[in-house]
Amino acid sequence: MINAGAYQPVPGGVTAARGFLAGGAAAGLKKNGQLDLALIYSSTPARAAGVYTTNLVQAAPLVLTRRRVAAGTARAVIINAGNANACTGARGLSDAAAMAGAAAAALDIEEQQVLVASTGVIGVPLPVEKIAAAVPALAASLSPENHSRAARAIMTTDLVAKEYAVQVALANRTITIGGMAKGSGMIHPNMATMLCFITTDANIGSQALQAALKQAVDDSFNMITVDGDTSTNDMVLALANGQAANPEIMPDTDDFRLFYGGLLEVCSCLAKMIARDGEGATRLIEVTVTGAPTVQDARLAARAVAGSNLFKAAVFGQDANWGRILCAVGYSGANFRPDRVDIYIGDVQVAGNGGALDFAEERAAAMLKQDPVTVRVDLKCGAHRATAWGCDLTYDYVRINGSYRT
Amino acid sequence: MINAGAYQPVPGGVTAARGFLAGGAAAGLKKNGQLDLALIYSSTPARAAGVYTTNLVQAAPLVLTRRRVAAGTARAVIINAGNANACTGARGLSDAAAMAGAAAAALDIEEQQVLVASTGVIGVPLPVEKIAAAVPALAASLSPENHSRAARAIMTTDLVAKEYAVQVALANRTITIGGMAKGSGMIHPNMATMLCFITTDANIGSQALQAALKQAVDDSFNMITVDGDTSTNDMVLALANGQAANPEIMPDTDDFRLFYGGLLEVCSCLAKMIARDGEGATRLIEVTVTGAPTVQDARLAARAVAGSNLFKAAVFGQDANWGRILCAVGYSGANFRPDRVDIYIGDVQVAGNGGALDFAEERAAAMLKQDPVTVRVDLKCGAHRATAWGCDLTYDYVRINGSYRT
Repeated sequence: MINAGAYQPVPGGVTAARGFLAGGAAAGLKKNGQLDLALIYSSTPARAAGVYTTNLVQAAPLVLTRRRVAAGTARAVIINAGNANACTGARGLSDAAAMAGAAAAALDIEEQQVLVASTGVIGVPLPVEKIAAAVPALAASLSPENHSRAARAIMTTDLVAKEYAVQVALANRTITIGGMAKGSGMIHPNMATMLCFITTDANIGSQALQAALKQAVDDSFNMITVDGDTSTNDMVLALANGQAANPEIMPDTDDFRLFYGGLLEVCSCLAKMIARDGEGATRLIEVTVTGAPTVQDARLAARAVAGSNLFKAAVFGQDANWGRILCAVGYSGANFRPDRVDIYIGDVQVAGNGGALDFAEERAAAMLKQDPVTVRVDLKCGAHRATAWGCDLTYDYVRINGSYRT
Repeated sequence: MINAGAYQPVPGGVTAARGFLAGGAAAGLKKNGQLDLALIYSSTPARAAGVYTTNLVQAAPLVLTRRRVAAGTARAVIINAGNANACTGARGLSDAAAMAGAAAAALDIEEQQVLVASTGVIGVPLPVEKIAAAVPALAASLSPENHSRAARAIMTTDLVAKEYAVQVALANRTITIGGMAKGSGMIHPNMATMLCFITTDANIGSQALQAALKQAVDDSFNMITVDGDTSTNDMVLALANGQAANPEIMPDTDDFRLFYGGLLEVCSCLAKMIARDGEGATRLIEVTVTGAPTVQDARLAARAVAGSNLFKAAVFGQDANWGRILCAVGYSGANFRPDRVDIYIGDVQVAGNGGALDFAEERAAAMLKQDPVTVRVDLKCGAHRATAWGCDLTYDYVRINGSYRT
């Protein structure tokens, strides 16, 4: 197991790692001159990896980026907020390519080395001329200091910018992994794709990077739920430029496990920030399922509880309604025995062996006032565990999503 | 295909069919002397069929009833509201048996001939002595007129009682199928199991009845969604006492298809009443998916749209947000080509071939003010179709579910 002490949080977000610069600009896609265009740049070619939405409807920038990541290396990522460039047909693909082309020209690199991401309204053509007009100044503004400007530029309905970075001590060298993210699942579906961009100076091959990223996403972003909807534009990208000059990280080595641990730390922190910032949310909910027969059972059960509208509303109302928790585990698809389940809200056990306990209602309600609210479900059917994150369901969720577009 | 004109709506709910009596009583499980105990009785033994929750956590009355239905015949069903008798361990099973036993004694029939259903709070022992005390007067009050009293007695958070019945002209005889239902999926999880009881005087074998019921439930109750949660107590039971004296309905005959059509009509009407009565709902949403490659694809897509929190909130806000509809189809698991999809809200086409159309926003908003709101998604990928029903997501849903139990 990874010792969590091996990871040292550091400032800098996507520019914490050596050789990365970032910037943010207002291209006029959002109203009122808000930042809406971000650029991440590596001074040397970086290995690239990506994990994408499972929605069958996939936005043009995602189609383009997936193809380029598959080629193995990249130098830059350009991201806009305010328009998803989704459901925009053939024009969408040429607009995404033109957006990348504008960045390539300004950075004097090959267009194939530029990845693209978009988030915003679905079904409206991308105003690519506004983006092209803003790119030269954006490229000129790239710096190690502008990481927060980039993180702000990719926000849509997010209330806070989301950045995190850690240093990891490998056997022979310290490497840095940083990232920024936005969006809360499909909160504001037309304006809230989940996007995350990871940068690292580690020297690691594309396949090992892809394997580590896929696993880290499964244990972090794929364990958060805000409303169960999955966007057309979701993606997590990782760039590794090797400037830490460590011996190449190979699969199944101690260095790989250390790198993975650091990557998971960055992804988990960003995922929790997203869940906590869910539309209208007042509290983060952290659900840990232990004693599951398999990891998959633990994941299914944890996600079902974190995603139950009924339990989310009960958290908002501070109602220690353990029946809703057991019920969600019951329909999750996880394999378990109902008559063995113990349930804890904070440190108060509210159910034992699948049945009621005589607990202090006011103590449980107090646990539901904390942030995060922690729930533990012990299935007592095995040795596997998983944690999922969500947020409470509030009046504001309905208000925001009932009146957004028009 | 069945001609819809063959079904004649008739009054009477669960006592519309020959030989069925019903009643409702206040046993003191709900507050303020509300009706909370219902009894359905057939004057002759009836073939029984049942469809049950898929939740791994199953309440005691469901375990008992499933066993008795499997034996093939029944004479009575006793149902209480106010306590689910779920997560109550071994005591739960003996309490459910005692509840059936009280009914059997009062009706002077074998205990094995009595089915049991419960809905209400999870994890609290059933006050079976209150039920036993109320049963003799309830049994004495059984009558053809008391069907509405029974329908009211099974309500929990429902705002309206739900009853429906039709007459069906078979080749040689007219039969009657009636039913009553309650609950809105897992709206108020501790107090809102979905229950439905169907009675018919048709002469039909247990296996044919079970096959027809399973199919009708798949096309009706399994196509409604209120919040995605599945209760520990959900069940649909059917009793057929054969008093219409028709030649026994055999599978794969015209009479079977006519019977099935009538059964589906009753189940669909009750299912729509449940969806329309969802917690806090202001409007029924009816989503029809056409042009699907298989029925399963059509069902997945229709249910995903009807169940999308984002689309449900958009309906409440009267926002013609077609991107949320296409997005939900995209993550539904249905097989289709995004660039072929046409979307209609009411009679206004809002998207064509997966892309935006220049539609009149105010006309679409007007369609979203209607009740029901109808949505049609044409996948243009095949010849199959399905319809799902849901309701809008409102402030009241959050209020009710945030503050229910305590």
